[in-house]
Amino acid sequence: MRTRIKEIFRCQSKFKDQEVTIMGWVRTNRAQAQFGFLNVNDGSFLNNLQVVYENDLVNFDEISKFGVGVSVNIRGKVVLTPEMKQPLELHASKVEMLGDCPETYPIQPKRHTREFLREVAHLRPRTNLFSAVFRIRSVAAMAIHTYFQDRGYLYVHTPLITCADCEGSDQMFKITTLDLNNLPLNAGKVDYSKDLFGKQAFITGSGQLQGETFAMAFGDIYTFGPTFRTENSNTKVHANEFWMIEPEMAFCDLNGLMDIEEEMLKFVIQYVIERCPEEIAFCDQFVAKGLKAKIERLLSSNFTRITHKEVIDILQKANIKWEFEPTYNGDIAKEHEKYITEYFNGPVFITNWPKDIKAYYMKLNSDNETVAAVDLIVPEAGELMGGSQREENLEKLLTRMKELKVDANNIDWYLDTRRYGGCVHSGFGMGFERLIMYLTGIENIRDVIPFPRTPKNCEF
Amino acid sequence: MRTRIKEIFRCQSKFKDQEVTIMGWVRTNRAQAQFGFLNVNDGSFLNNLQVVYENDLVNFDEISKFGVGVSVNIRGKVVLTPEMKQPLELHASKVEMLGDCPETYPIQPKRHTREFLREVAHLRPRTNLFSAVFRIRSVAAMAIHTYFQDRGYLYVHTPLITCADCEGSDQMFKITTLDLNNLPLNAGKVDYSKDLFGKQAFITGSGQLQGETFAMAFGDIYTFGPTFRTENSNTKVHANEFWMIEPEMAFCDLNGLMDIEEEMLKFVIQYVIERCPEEIAFCDQFVAKGLKAKIERLLSSNFTRITHKEVIDILQKANIKWEFEPTYNGDIAKEHEKYITEYFNGPVFITNWPKDIKAYYMKLNSDNETVAAVDLIVPEAGELMGGSQREENLEKLLTRMKELKVDANNIDWYLDTRRYGGCVHSGFGMGFERLIMYLTGIENIRDVIPFPRTPKNCEF
Repeated sequence: MRTRIKEIFRCQSKFKDQEVTIMGWVRTNRAQAQFGFLNVNDGSFLNNLQVVYENDLVNFDEISKFGVGVSVNIRGKVVLTPEMKQPLELHASKVEMLGDCPETYPIQPKRHTREFLREVAHLRPRTNLFSAVFRIRSVAAMAIHTYFQDRGYLYVHTPLITCADCEGSDQMFKITTLDLNNLPLNAGKVDYSKDLFGKQAFITGSGQLQGETFAMAFGDIYTFGPTFRTENSNTKVHANEFWMIEPEMAFCDLNGLMDIEEEMLKFVIQYVIERCPEEIAFCDQFVAKGLKAKIERLLSSNFTRITHKEVIDILQKANIKWEFEPTYNGDIAKEHEKYITEYFNGPVFITNWPKDIKAYYMKLNSDNETVAAVDLIVPEAGELMGGSQREENLEKLLTRMKELKVDANNIDWYLDTRRYGGCVHSGFGMGFERLIMYLTGIENIRDVIPFPRTPKNCEF
Repeated sequence: MRTRIKEIFRCQSKFKDQEVTIMGWVRTNRAQAQFGFLNVNDGSFLNNLQVVYENDLVNFDEISKFGVGVSVNIRGKVVLTPEMKQPLELHASKVEMLGDCPETYPIQPKRHTREFLREVAHLRPRTNLFSAVFRIRSVAAMAIHTYFQDRGYLYVHTPLITCADCEGSDQMFKITTLDLNNLPLNAGKVDYSKDLFGKQAFITGSGQLQGETFAMAFGDIYTFGPTFRTENSNTKVHANEFWMIEPEMAFCDLNGLMDIEEEMLKFVIQYVIERCPEEIAFCDQFVAKGLKAKIERLLSSNFTRITHKEVIDILQKANIKWEFEPTYNGDIAKEHEKYITEYFNGPVFITNWPKDIKAYYMKLNSDNETVAAVDLIVPEAGELMGGSQREENLEKLLTRMKELKVDANNIDWYLDTRRYGGCVHSGFGMGFERLIMYLTGIENIRDVIPFPRTPKNCEF
């Protein structure tokens, strides 16, 4: 029977002076003449277990030479060491090598650059940094499922393959089973009737439209799945494949939407703080000083609710030379977001955006100029979620689609949500990676995705 | 403040004689001269709430004419009716229409064929059947996350976009940002250096290889995400997009793997039975008689463990004229699966398969003829999971890759799991839809996926 290292750390009194068997990987080995120390990690826990081995072990000389990365099977007694730096150690009665690891092993116990570690993305989870980051990612994913499921939301798997190119197919990857070196043609054009689906298909950038159809049946639903963008931009915040959460709630207006966004974010942060204290402390110490205080502050923050117009008023009154001049019909730049979160000293919901810079499905306000959209901007993170009340009025929706040149024929099924028992409803989208960057302090999206996909980069 | 109908049903004594506001959709309306009944569903619960409205309401005549599908806002008093068929009803003091629904509404209160409902996949969740099926799907997804997270597994998002065509690129969709009507060429072939990733890319059919690299860091991991196959087959059990769970465990052999598969399956079934009693009862009554007894029986079943060779022995001894003759180096057909689960009267793990019909990464047994693979076959469902102990020996793995013509250069990173601290490890894959078909009794995969993708079919 194998014991996980996390369990030993979490239940120290239970394991005090007990014999246990652990299996894991050697992180360091300090051998002396009479005894030595192995730091062993089994992946269950951020911290290593210190194993003491003495020269009465039959294979003491062999153990002394175990290199970094070797996998081991160790039996020993748990000894609590409250006077030491680490709270406990394992006094080994048996240390067996399971798999060797040559000295060419790239992950040595020293500081590696993040750039280097991206080149060995399949090995970087064996470092403390990525052990922390990907554990926080996993726990945060569970936090999201828990939040929504506990509140009766339906988790819906919206399709990734789609033929409805309503959001602009230039933003979507084309998919095909045709041989690109030998495409079937019809009148000089690719004959998609020969393709698997009988027409041109894409992988999608959003499950919102399908999500809305489910909200009109189940009331409250959420999606949580991968999403794709073809953007050819090499920045720290863009990836071509990322995960997104898209909740959609019937009978919910813009204020209700903001309530949910705020409650969900606080729930997820609390959940991660409780379950990943070592990981948060590690990121606080080695990634972004002050991280822990930052996210704890958010938990007790009041989220300001303010209109886009009021934001522009504040920005224009500020005695600052902006790189981008704030305007009533324009977007809000990074520099503005920063100023506004500092101005209110906390997260800010910005509502009622000019209709011309937002999507067709957002509810037109009575001023005919703004839509009931909301962006949540958060200190040091910028925009974390974007959502809106949806236009539930079919005629108004069709008018907006015409204005924005969205082909209604393509998504006639979507319009049924307004034809048959429509109601006030709202939804938002949250990029999961952006949340993880916020929770870890990591600044490059490539370092919060196990195997990131960015332009010219699709390894592993 | 709006109350969900599920809450009223679940906490009847709390709501007894209380005033509540509900919002939902009219499923039926039976109007008489003095009073009428609305059956209202808000999506939180399979069952409808019966609303009684009397002619003292100012808009009684209007309410009497509310059609099926209308969305409503209703205030009223909860009255327990233990003597009636339904345990409670709502005596309305206010009934307001939120959104009308014309008589052309396709979802009328009558039996629709599943084939018809597939054509209105965006509306079918408004039927009892799909309300039950997709709620079971959502709850089962949470059951899987709960099982693994409670046991310390890391949830890893393996990439969907991949350039490693190791599993046979003919099975994968090609993706591209190139204009297919104007492809860049180099020496007469498509010049993928002009594509977004600088080379040919696909969407993947498995996250196993990347999952293994994470298991060698975190010990226990699982994936849960969408998967794609290009198979051009129109059967009841094939779809081109489906969801899959792929756990991978370090320091775990074939027996440990079977322990986990059995425990997980029982956990998920128990979880769904507890949380979806109405949905399971509905499926039992209207989809597959005996469903409830079937899945409850599985909970108390002993899962038999038997080798492929032993299975063939039994099949050959059986006094049956097989359509497919069972052989020691061949696969096990549906008819054989059925016989074997009946023979053992329960689920059966079939282990140690002939190496020639299994994948290169499976551990070669000492007989040099079989691999440590295991398929779990379940009464009435057939194969529910497939897994194996992985070949941890690099030389043996390379030999198998050469024999099966798998290009090792393409996945050299994967081989690092064997080079650097390798260990005995195992994993399995479970098709999520197959589980949902088992849990609901639904026989066509198109009816357990919100918006199914099959050849020539990519609507919505």
